[in-house]
Amino acid sequence: MSEMTIEQPSSKERASRQRIPVAILGATGSVGQRFIQLLAAHPWFRIHEVVASDRSAGKAYGDAADWKLETSLPTEAADLRVRSLGDDLESALVFSSLDASVAGEAEELYASRGCAVVSNSRNHRMAPDVPLLIPEVNCDHLDALKVQKKRRGGKGFIVTNPNCSTIGLAMAVAPIERAHGIDVMHAFTMQAVSGAGYAGVSSFAILDNVVPYIGGEEEKVESEPRKILGRWTPEGFKDAPMKISAHTNRVPVLDGHTICVSLRFRQSEDLRRHFPIEKLIDDVREALVAFRGEPQRLGLPSAPEQPIVLLPDSDRPQPRLDRNAQNGMAVTVGRLRPCPVLDIRLVALVHNTIRGAAGAAILNAELLHARKLLP
Amino acid sequence: MSEMTIEQPSSKERASRQRIPVAILGATGSVGQRFIQLLAAHPWFRIHEVVASDRSAGKAYGDAADWKLETSLPTEAADLRVRSLGDDLESALVFSSLDASVAGEAEELYASRGCAVVSNSRNHRMAPDVPLLIPEVNCDHLDALKVQKKRRGGKGFIVTNPNCSTIGLAMAVAPIERAHGIDVMHAFTMQAVSGAGYAGVSSFAILDNVVPYIGGEEEKVESEPRKILGRWTPEGFKDAPMKISAHTNRVPVLDGHTICVSLRFRQSEDLRRHFPIEKLIDDVREALVAFRGEPQRLGLPSAPEQPIVLLPDSDRPQPRLDRNAQNGMAVTVGRLRPCPVLDIRLVALVHNTIRGAAGAAILNAELLHARKLLP
Amino acid sequence: MSEMTIEQPSSKERASRQRIPVAILGATGSVGQRFIQLLAAHPWFRIHEVVASDRSAGKAYGDAADWKLETSLPTEAADLRVRSLGDDLESALVFSSLDASVAGEAEELYASRGCAVVSNSRNHRMAPDVPLLIPEVNCDHLDALKVQKKRRGGKGFIVTNPNCSTIGLAMAVAPIERAHGIDVMHAFTMQAVSGAGYAGVSSFAILDNVVPYIGGEEEKVESEPRKILGRWTPEGFKDAPMKISAHTNRVPVLDGHTICVSLRFRQSEDLRRHFPIEKLIDDVREALVAFRGEPQRLGLPSAPEQPIVLLPDSDRPQPRLDRNAQNGMAVTVGRLRPCPVLDIRLVALVHNTIRGAAGAAILNAELLHARKLLP
Amino acid sequence: MSEMTIEQPSSKERASRQRIPVAILGATGSVGQRFIQLLAAHPWFRIHEVVASDRSAGKAYGDAADWKLETSLPTEAADLRVRSLGDDLESALVFSSLDASVAGEAEELYASRGCAVVSNSRNHRMAPDVPLLIPEVNCDHLDALKVQKKRRGGKGFIVTNPNCSTIGLAMAVAPIERAHGIDVMHAFTMQAVSGAGYAGVSSFAILDNVVPYIGGEEEKVESEPRKILGRWTPEGFKDAPMKISAHTNRVPVLDGHTICVSLRFRQSEDLRRHFPIEKLIDDVREALVAFRGEPQRLGLPSAPEQPIVLLPDSDRPQPRLDRNAQNGMAVTVGRLRPCPVLDIRLVALVHNTIRGAAGAAILNAELLHARKLLP
Repeated sequence: MSEMTIEQPSSKERASRQRIPVAILGATGSVGQRFIQLLAAHPWFRIHEVVASDRSAGKAYGDAADWKLETSLPTEAADLRVRSLGDDLESALVFSSLDASVAGEAEELYASRGCAVVSNSRNHRMAPDVPLLIPEVNCDHLDALKVQKKRRGGKGFIVTNPNCSTIGLAMAVAPIERAHGIDVMHAFTMQAVSGAGYAGVSSFAILDNVVPYIGGEEEKVESEPRKILGRWTPEGFKDAPMKISAHTNRVPVLDGHTICVSLRFRQSEDLRRHFPIEKLIDDVREALVAFRGEPQRLGLPSAPEQPIVLLPDSDRPQPRLDRNAQNGMAVTVGRLRPCPVLDIRLVALVHNTIRGAAGAAILNAELLHARKLLP
Repeated sequence: MSEMTIEQPSSKERASRQRIPVAILGATGSVGQRFIQLLAAHPWFRIHEVVASDRSAGKAYGDAADWKLETSLPTEAADLRVRSLGDDLESALVFSSLDASVAGEAEELYASRGCAVVSNSRNHRMAPDVPLLIPEVNCDHLDALKVQKKRRGGKGFIVTNPNCSTIGLAMAVAPIERAHGIDVMHAFTMQAVSGAGYAGVSSFAILDNVVPYIGGEEEKVESEPRKILGRWTPEGFKDAPMKISAHTNRVPVLDGHTICVSLRFRQSEDLRRHFPIEKLIDDVREALVAFRGEPQRLGLPSAPEQPIVLLPDSDRPQPRLDRNAQNGMAVTVGRLRPCPVLDIRLVALVHNTIRGAAGAAILNAELLHARKLLP
Repeated sequence: MSEMTIEQPSSKERASRQRIPVAILGATGSVGQRFIQLLAAHPWFRIHEVVASDRSAGKAYGDAADWKLETSLPTEAADLRVRSLGDDLESALVFSSLDASVAGEAEELYASRGCAVVSNSRNHRMAPDVPLLIPEVNCDHLDALKVQKKRRGGKGFIVTNPNCSTIGLAMAVAPIERAHGIDVMHAFTMQAVSGAGYAGVSSFAILDNVVPYIGGEEEKVESEPRKILGRWTPEGFKDAPMKISAHTNRVPVLDGHTICVSLRFRQSEDLRRHFPIEKLIDDVREALVAFRGEPQRLGLPSAPEQPIVLLPDSDRPQPRLDRNAQNGMAVTVGRLRPCPVLDIRLVALVHNTIRGAAGAAILNAELLHARKLLP
Repeated sequence: MSEMTIEQPSSKERASRQRIPVAILGATGSVGQRFIQLLAAHPWFRIHEVVASDRSAGKAYGDAADWKLETSLPTEAADLRVRSLGDDLESALVFSSLDASVAGEAEELYASRGCAVVSNSRNHRMAPDVPLLIPEVNCDHLDALKVQKKRRGGKGFIVTNPNCSTIGLAMAVAPIERAHGIDVMHAFTMQAVSGAGYAGVSSFAILDNVVPYIGGEEEKVESEPRKILGRWTPEGFKDAPMKISAHTNRVPVLDGHTICVSLRFRQSEDLRRHFPIEKLIDDVREALVAFRGEPQRLGLPSAPEQPIVLLPDSDRPQPRLDRNAQNGMAVTVGRLRPCPVLDIRLVALVHNTIRGAAGAAILNAELLHARKLLP
């Protein structure tokens, strides 16, 4: 090997060095591992720092993380030394998948130090100047960052993505909200065990069983979509004027949250007077299929070509068959049909740890980068 | 052994001989096996004839049935010779768990021959003179039998029990319908695989999966409760004036259908104006706990002491833990709480092959016998 | 109610007071809950004290235990105040289902205080003066108690039952060992998740999966049967002269360990020279069916009428269908057939938390009581 | 578009036309769908004809097949008209995944018509002039084709791949057989439900359960490896001189057969006298890692880079995590350790419908093509 090749990095190495260094808070957990998996080959970002609880700190990531994904642990992550939460970080872009018990304070800390904190945790989602972002749906909410940065007196900020169920629901109905407005929604979820983290659901609790309760989940699904589908105004976020009722359930599925939805249009009576329900359903079908957003226009690396995939078969979507649609970044929708009580109903499915968590945060960060909003 | 004991049957034998002989149509299927299990030790009825498809006819029941239940095959059934559908039967009481493709004609045939056909099949449920019976809820519907017998010009008749999901839903809301009336219901089901029969759901289709579609099921859950909760009048059945929307789903659970329900009272505005929702929920709680019906008053052998069991824990009912409440004959209810869109919501659970099928039919037959309506 | 009835307890109350008071160490865990369930209606023993970790101490048992069994929490246990490990106890009979990390010391402590400690934990199983007891198989091992009590200088002692897999294996082959002697065994297990405690196996780890490793399990299955099937001699325990190889696996089953066994007779060449393999298998079949032991002779309350139940069907035993045979106290055996490498092979099944844990310990205590060995 | 582009196919179209046309018998079943999935993008072969039962014949493949795989139905297959079994075919290369009830006759028919029949069915596997082929292990067996063609008096022939469990077992031990020879093996399988076809295992039969019996499976696992690991001689196939005992079990896993193996070397006493077991295990470890065969040397398109992947973790391989290693074409091995009864033991895992079925057959066909043995 000549000296030249030693001094001059290969184009691949150059590309690697030029990628933006990022840190991952809560890197050993189930969503943390998805971050590692999805960022390992990312064209823009490079895993530079991994942060976890004191129990893991100091260890190599490969030893600290009990790797549970089907793909093998990326070598570039295996040797990283795990940092302690609170340590100074070199990365200006920080992904967070911390447990809610520590996320609030830790994310605030790193934002105050000037980092862009892109969080999957619930703590700041409903804060009055924090975007609850789905890039396809509400990228205008990024305008809240000016207010947020001003509050903090610096360049750091926090951006959040919705709860794993909410993101499936909000994406599936966003085109409907845009087309006709939504007055009322009943959402009923059947959620995968990975949503509770690796140790979250004991096998003894869920084999041959359903648990019709997930702590705090219904409150999130009933409130977050109203913020997401609302608008940012000079006076702050203005919720979409819809009412939501959510029943959330845990089922023996590994990945993929299935959501049954019934909804009424905001102008239901008017619409129904002028159009047969079949025509309205055709409109909705077209709106779902045609739905595109900023990530598609910008060609963001993690953007699904088609954010909503409409499935024709009467018994789809199904989590095992459809959760990986468009690399797990699309929401699949099926069974669009009239509702005998409201107007229409449908079934939506989202991969809860990809589009519903790590993938959502990464897409958020990509949007921030494309919009030149990263510090 | 003396001659006396030979000539005079023991009291047990006498009891056995005096029990009413019954036939079971479709005896080898999953509901058929439940019939065998539940009737084997029945104090009033005695399994006398088993009827199945031509493929099984002529074999001993123990050889024809691929017995799948946890309790062992009752010896009194094992040696019965399987009869062919259409054969003349000695039993005047005939239970039917036939597949819908043959049940319609076969049940009509045996009714026309003078039998009381107590059916779990869907074919005649919505017929204008056939009771769709839940003895705790609508035993007044038995008055329709006069009309039905007259139509047929004989003593035979058909009585049906509701679909397995419907029965859980209808029982859980019957006390609410009685107390306040129900205007609108959204019902979301998570149904066990045994509901589809032993071969009905392939393991490859349901492991690590949810199937958000069950053929014909939503139609049943949206229509049957209206008949059940309605009244028999001189002009025929009069449906309860409620609207129902049902999403039905298959989940990897062996037995037990879980149903999430949101509902609005018929006089919702009035009630809400005069009472806080907490008070209305307390009323409903009391109505559920106090609910009793004709089977309890008559002390029918299969009647659960308490038809509706209200569970206090926030994460119940769960199919594995609660499906066998009161020998599988009670509907368990939990999570009674306000609905942000309608008035209240709850979760109900029913053992789909006991209270939701074979046990329901047996309770119907017990009511017929107690009311002296059997031929 | 008259004064008499107030002053004079009913016969039921008297019976209850006369039952022997017992304590349960580790009462809130999965085996602890089985102890509570099985002892609640026990004719000889009465749950008097429940002991758990400091986290639970002071609470009512009903609050401390997250009850997970299908039957409801016995009222007599619900109100008991949980004691701390190490507290002085009033009960002279102490059941232990403690975690191995604390069982060693705690059981030693209570034995030194004069209690009969009947333990399901692994710590003292292989000790040179502690019986590893299966009452049907080796009740002569109780003679070791004299030595043990002498060592401790008091009346207290420890008796253990085998590991949950071992007990299934050892019972299934005990009649074969007695009839022909066993030279070599290959045992392959498929173990239920309840064997690891409620939180032991994450659903994410085991849904759609098999884990071919259970820490420490193979060592137990390879050593314990040799002690169990051996003899107590004046010089101490003398192991049965057999070699065992065990592969232990975790599968997505709730309760019931399935064990495939291939074995060679000690006098294999002699036997095979004189008898066709079919004859030897018939002998083994008869030995299994005829197998009875001290619990059956003494009519102990928890003794299964038939300790080994031989199933004729070619695809049995199966955990879901057979684990509750004889109230979960029998080992079911099937597929007895020639082995192309050794002599014979079979499949055995044991309910791991009943016959394999709490039920085993209770049967041990019953034997101690019947033999008048309790302090 | 110019005329040129119409007349002259694009390079992609040319490539497509030049690919070898193939037919798939039994194309709608579970292995048939894997054939479609794996052949859709194959560089050498092109799906030209699909053949199924009369029930499907005449329909478009997309309508006839109830597509169950996670990837979507390849468009090039969706529109193919399904042919009837027995129809004349244009393809000289015919893959067969027919049910054993019809495979025997049908494969013989197409071979007699001059086709190369590459079969996954069991019917001709043990025939005296039919190779039972694992290209990495026994490609010398292809010499049997001369005899077979001569028998048939033409150019057509049948080549088979082993049973899905056998292929995992035989590959895992092939390097050991080569290094030291194997005298005796105990194999114990935990098999996925997909091995039985889509409708093969009812969910009611396998949820929360294990079935310790698979019809005909143990016989295959006990006989096929002896042929595979044996040699082709001028006198015919000569089995490897080993004895095998197999226990085969069905577990609730979707894909991936897990196999526990204990084995003794042919020269066990000699080896153990001269070498410590740790040294022998190191030898085996090296042999497994270094194992390569003809497909790797020839760079066949479906060949895994490393046919055997040795996993270091003590609890691997696991079906959900490891079945897709090397696109499902590698056998993963772990837990290599001493056996207290024989010499060594290990756990092997094979993707039963890829390396254990369709992928195996495709690799066989690739070898035939590379060796210029296709008609």
